[in-house]
Amino acid sequence: MHQGQQFERSVFFVSDGTAITAETLGHSLLAQFPNVKFNVRIIPYISSEEAALKVVEEINACYHEEGELPLVFDTLVDANVRDVINTANAVNLDVFEGMISKLEQELKTAPTKLIGQTHAVTNTEHYKARIDAVHFALDNDDGARTRHYDKADIILIGVSRSGKTPTAIYLSLQFGIRVANYPLTEEDLDDNRLPKVLRDHKKKLFGLMIDPDRLVAIRTERKAGSRYASYSQCQMELRAIEGIFISEGIPFLNVTEMSIEEISTRILQITGLNRRVS
Amino acid sequence: MHQGQQFERSVFFVSDGTAITAETLGHSLLAQFPNVKFNVRIIPYISSEEAALKVVEEINACYHEEGELPLVFDTLVDANVRDVINTANAVNLDVFEGMISKLEQELKTAPTKLIGQTHAVTNTEHYKARIDAVHFALDNDDGARTRHYDKADIILIGVSRSGKTPTAIYLSLQFGIRVANYPLTEEDLDDNRLPKVLRDHKKKLFGLMIDPDRLVAIRTERKAGSRYASYSQCQMELRAIEGIFISEGIPFLNVTEMSIEEISTRILQITGLNRRVS
Repeated sequence: MHQGQQFERSVFFVSDGTAITAETLGHSLLAQFPNVKFNVRIIPYISSEEAALKVVEEINACYHEEGELPLVFDTLVDANVRDVINTANAVNLDVFEGMISKLEQELKTAPTKLIGQTHAVTNTEHYKARIDAVHFALDNDDGARTRHYDKADIILIGVSRSGKTPTAIYLSLQFGIRVANYPLTEEDLDDNRLPKVLRDHKKKLFGLMIDPDRLVAIRTERKAGSRYASYSQCQMELRAIEGIFISEGIPFLNVTEMSIEEISTRILQITGLNRRVS
Repeated sequence: MHQGQQFERSVFFVSDGTAITAETLGHSLLAQFPNVKFNVRIIPYISSEEAALKVVEEINACYHEEGELPLVFDTLVDANVRDVINTANAVNLDVFEGMISKLEQELKTAPTKLIGQTHAVTNTEHYKARIDAVHFALDNDDGARTRHYDKADIILIGVSRSGKTPTAIYLSLQFGIRVANYPLTEEDLDDNRLPKVLRDHKKKLFGLMIDPDRLVAIRTERKAGSRYASYSQCQMELRAIEGIFISEGIPFLNVTEMSIEEISTRILQITGLNRRVS
């Protein structure tokens, strides 16, 4: 056991499509081994045995150089292409192996074996919903416009740089949800109540909170030494906004330690908001 | 075999984290069975045996109602929680089973068994790169500003509504790449050459092409009956821009049939651009 000590290992993600699935699953598994430094190569669009042979050469060259078997995660639908990849000097982590046949058995229907289906535009309705939602998020970013709030599924509110924009973007791109976001400024906070435009859509509001230390750090990168980035200013704004969230009964989340993905899925869970895509 | 005929099946994605991995892999696999209508329930943040028991009840109720075993994809790190889920009346598609132990054996190191690691902010550098890139994409969307083009990794160009913005957003959010985008307007196209601001950054340019029929459809949704959405206008703009791409030697991609994910991964492949995150 390499206890505690850091070591490296090469990893290949091989796919007949975008490789997003192989990458997502691979990263999930590798995250369980934080003391290993994984050197990742992503190889998408391998759809022929010929292309697979070249990948095998690359994997073998890597093994030859490093003296340790590279890890190979693949999501290849075509068994012939998969068989070629499996000839490499590597630890094969075949994602689809077993699962597809288990599903075939259970569903009593044959898989299409069509490659690149995962991220293909198979459902144009869903696809359009996502694109429309992205444009909606951009058009309604940062309080730029408020006249479309009746069409929003949710309106994120928070102080400047609390994570509203990236969260809005993720929710729209991934789930097709129409998200507006509105920054509560010092003026709004001085009033100690919601601006009218938000009061009219109170049921759609969701608040983002963040710890003052983190907010100071983020704002300092933007405007170092400014009042905007000072601890006292950040703390004041955050106390005021938390007061509004609580007194107005607006659901909110402290996002300090969270990634965009976590914030977004938590928001869905808390609000019960449904995805427009699945 | 249910050949050709459409039938339905319930699916559960269960996770101790965001459920994004379970969902991504599950959708990949289910995409192989397009004649089945899958009714999906996503259940994130199941981190205790108690919470898992409630999920088991929900799965069993579903089985009871439908008379067919639901499919359950799970990415649970804790074996005890997983064991509880596995008691449900369901077809268990345990994503991590086997893979984690295979990795443990090969890496000769124990998994942390910490839950929710996949989409946690484990690498703050990478995380910051993504957030910064999203803000960069928004600030440099649609030719809004051009003075930061020296800091861009890539500048997407194309006619209005050819998919530049969603692609820029995806590349930034997913891969931390700094993407600007610039729409070539009729005036630019009349000149039959690149505007100066783009000529100064020619090596960063990447073109998006789209078929006229598709462009007409997209523009019609926005401004039905307008000259902007007419076939002749779309065709004229596309011919002109393709001419510029070719004469200027700008790499480009026809994105008509592609999803944002496909466009984005193809662009990385064609340009050899490196992700800032992995």
